[in-house]
Amino acid sequence: MQNIFVIGAGRASTALIEYLLNHADKENWKINVGDSSYDLAHQRVKNHPYGKAIKFDVNDKNQREYEIGNADLVVSFLPPFMHTIVAKECLKSRCHLVTASYLTVEMQELDPKVKKADLIFLNEMGLDPGIDHMNSIQLITKIKNEGGKIISFKSYGSGLISPDSRQNPWKYKFTWSPMNVVLAGQNGAKYLEDNQLKIVPYNRIFNDPKKITIPGYGDFEAYPNRDSLIYREKYDLNDVPNFFRATLRKPGYSEAWDQLIKLGLTDNSYTINNSEDLTYRNWVISYLPEVNGKKPEKALADFLEIPADGKLMQKLLWLGILSNDKIPLKDATPAMILLHLLEDRWKMNIHDTDLVILRTEIKYELNRKLKKIVSTMTCEGKDNHHTAMSKTVGLPAAIGAKLILNKKINEHGVIIPIHKDIYEPVLKELKKFKIDFVEKEIEVKGSGAA
Amino acid sequence: MQNIFVIGAGRASTALIEYLLNHADKENWKINVGDSSYDLAHQRVKNHPYGKAIKFDVNDKNQREYEIGNADLVVSFLPPFMHTIVAKECLKSRCHLVTASYLTVEMQELDPKVKKADLIFLNEMGLDPGIDHMNSIQLITKIKNEGGKIISFKSYGSGLISPDSRQNPWKYKFTWSPMNVVLAGQNGAKYLEDNQLKIVPYNRIFNDPKKITIPGYGDFEAYPNRDSLIYREKYDLNDVPNFFRATLRKPGYSEAWDQLIKLGLTDNSYTINNSEDLTYRNWVISYLPEVNGKKPEKALADFLEIPADGKLMQKLLWLGILSNDKIPLKDATPAMILLHLLEDRWKMNIHDTDLVILRTEIKYELNRKLKKIVSTMTCEGKDNHHTAMSKTVGLPAAIGAKLILNKKINEHGVIIPIHKDIYEPVLKELKKFKIDFVEKEIEVKGSGAA
Repeated sequence: MQNIFVIGAGRASTALIEYLLNHADKENWKINVGDSSYDLAHQRVKNHPYGKAIKFDVNDKNQREYEIGNADLVVSFLPPFMHTIVAKECLKSRCHLVTASYLTVEMQELDPKVKKADLIFLNEMGLDPGIDHMNSIQLITKIKNEGGKIISFKSYGSGLISPDSRQNPWKYKFTWSPMNVVLAGQNGAKYLEDNQLKIVPYNRIFNDPKKITIPGYGDFEAYPNRDSLIYREKYDLNDVPNFFRATLRKPGYSEAWDQLIKLGLTDNSYTINNSEDLTYRNWVISYLPEVNGKKPEKALADFLEIPADGKLMQKLLWLGILSNDKIPLKDATPAMILLHLLEDRWKMNIHDTDLVILRTEIKYELNRKLKKIVSTMTCEGKDNHHTAMSKTVGLPAAIGAKLILNKKINEHGVIIPIHKDIYEPVLKELKKFKIDFVEKEIEVKGSGAA
Repeated sequence: MQNIFVIGAGRASTALIEYLLNHADKENWKINVGDSSYDLAHQRVKNHPYGKAIKFDVNDKNQREYEIGNADLVVSFLPPFMHTIVAKECLKSRCHLVTASYLTVEMQELDPKVKKADLIFLNEMGLDPGIDHMNSIQLITKIKNEGGKIISFKSYGSGLISPDSRQNPWKYKFTWSPMNVVLAGQNGAKYLEDNQLKIVPYNRIFNDPKKITIPGYGDFEAYPNRDSLIYREKYDLNDVPNFFRATLRKPGYSEAWDQLIKLGLTDNSYTINNSEDLTYRNWVISYLPEVNGKKPEKALADFLEIPADGKLMQKLLWLGILSNDKIPLKDATPAMILLHLLEDRWKMNIHDTDLVILRTEIKYELNRKLKKIVSTMTCEGKDNHHTAMSKTVGLPAAIGAKLILNKKINEHGVIIPIHKDIYEPVLKELKKFKIDFVEKEIEVKGSGAA
């Protein structure tokens, strides 16, 4: 019998834990689920014969040593900054690790020790990062094997709300880590266009989104996502002159979010002392250079140079940033205050369903012809617990765990799913869960430019 | 005999070390000067009978323990982020500490232990912060003692270049920590106007400078400096509706610097991989959203929406940001690359002299009349080593050290110079060095507004 310890039992873990429990009997697994809330852990496990819910505090050294010490593999769905402490414990107890989060420098630094201990720390094993890598590498390998020369790689991903549930001016609700949405783009982005490095600082990330249409779901806009160039190297596309990764939103979102950045409301680097004494209205007024007796609504529109009665203002005011409610947070950062508002406004209702989109566009030359392959995956959730996000993030992590425990992965060390012995079986199994890509091949006329 | 250990022997320490050596005989002091460069330390100490130069590495645990263990008082002129490691060693060895840097949260947290050990850790004991506090508190105390009610407090400070040495388009050169200049404002600023909290995010710090004239030195502009509200509390001005601290530059500087921020060139939060393979020109082009065959100079002007042949462009191009020189730094951050250019362009020549300005403006009501007191200190350097900056930063720290060793300060713990037993003797002694304030009292007509 092998022991799997899942840390984090929030909405994100629903599909992960279901998969593990459903396979526990056949695979001979015991599944422990730890969360700071025992009730949450118990909701996931219920009375399953192979499952156990644990009230777990990752900062409790003794408990951490005990629970991870008993495990053969840990799946950490904690907030990303907490993975390192888990990873170090896994190394000590000689236990594998799976996360769905971006590989950090701290995690990467553990690689030699993880290799030496003959362990696998599999990161970026979710949706985006995760399925996007696996699909991309599969396409790239296929094109290369056919003798194609790749000219342009673009990939788009996002967790959104389904068309039926978009009843708000932003056409967006939180379906995943809310703070990540508030802080999105704060380290800027990098990509490559016609062999020219492009750097987009935070003050311009949401400034100039690209338009894109997804069949069946209409128009979207895409803003650049983090440092694309890391993946150009990992995908072995070092000679490709165009490489771009982006995040999707419904049209209008970026322009409105850009106003919040311009105002300064997304900053998480300083606190506002005694924020609990302010109303949201007071707070936002403090960011307006000139009020001078104007109504704050007017001063806000004037500062942003937007019409006071337009759709953009409507989006901003709908958030409640000028409400007279007291801020219920003590000494909070601007980002924390904004998050608090958004968590109320962008909350999924019980009947809301979410939508996940991944799309990869690759241009390449083959036999002197310019071709384009477009690969699209869409997935809608069942309800506000069985979300598409939980499914598309959790299943890769769960299948990854299975592959590790069944010794199907040859690589060791700190890795991401760009290896054939990972992406082939995972993508194959995901199809059974209707997580599948539609591929379209197009012949392109004209030059080889992106 | 008492031992003083000065850490850091750069240009900033010239006046500090001179003062300590000149007083060593009379005060019965031994002065050790440590720097990572022995030559630099020796330049300061030469063969002074009471001085000793030491090659010192603050990260060498044994050496740190030994040298600080032998000292009765340490003056740390290291970069601010290194003070904490020094402070912890001082606590262990029961030795006093003086710095000229802003008090950090980490330093403040040591207060209970410092108090318990009956020690003094005197911070912000330089020019700004330092002399500005001392002069401000003295003025505030005087006004309060007369029965005045303060309505508005504004203070301006800066290290600049003297009028004769301003032969560049920015009318600015580095006279103090260059990286601090590049990163200035990155945490935004806060102040109070008519009892309304004002928050200025980084993207607007240099956007709307206030104009101010300093007699004898002409026109300047002022951008808001950090969190002013901390000092409203420390100056015991909690009921004052206007409180503002700012930094001075010659007119035109802020608008030009704002372009560098808008471009994204001041960011220190991410590295550019293989920056050593880029020219400055390549690098800056990567920040331009649209080049499309335009000359980069034209694309830059178009992006910034400024005339391609105007003074603003001239300032930017003069820095060399579009030069074809290779960037000589490996995997550097944008701020590090910009710093490297500026360190060459804004370097003080041997005949250059610097200029320090402090100015405090306080409005108050006394006997139903509205009054204003304006207090101004200006100081010019002798040459590029005996700078006004080194003098105005180093002498307060040196005199502070003397007061501590002579047991003239009643306070204990982690403090800043807002106490009478510090600011009165220090300001008095600074006058002997011609660091002196000119005070002007004006009767103001009209309302009590700022």
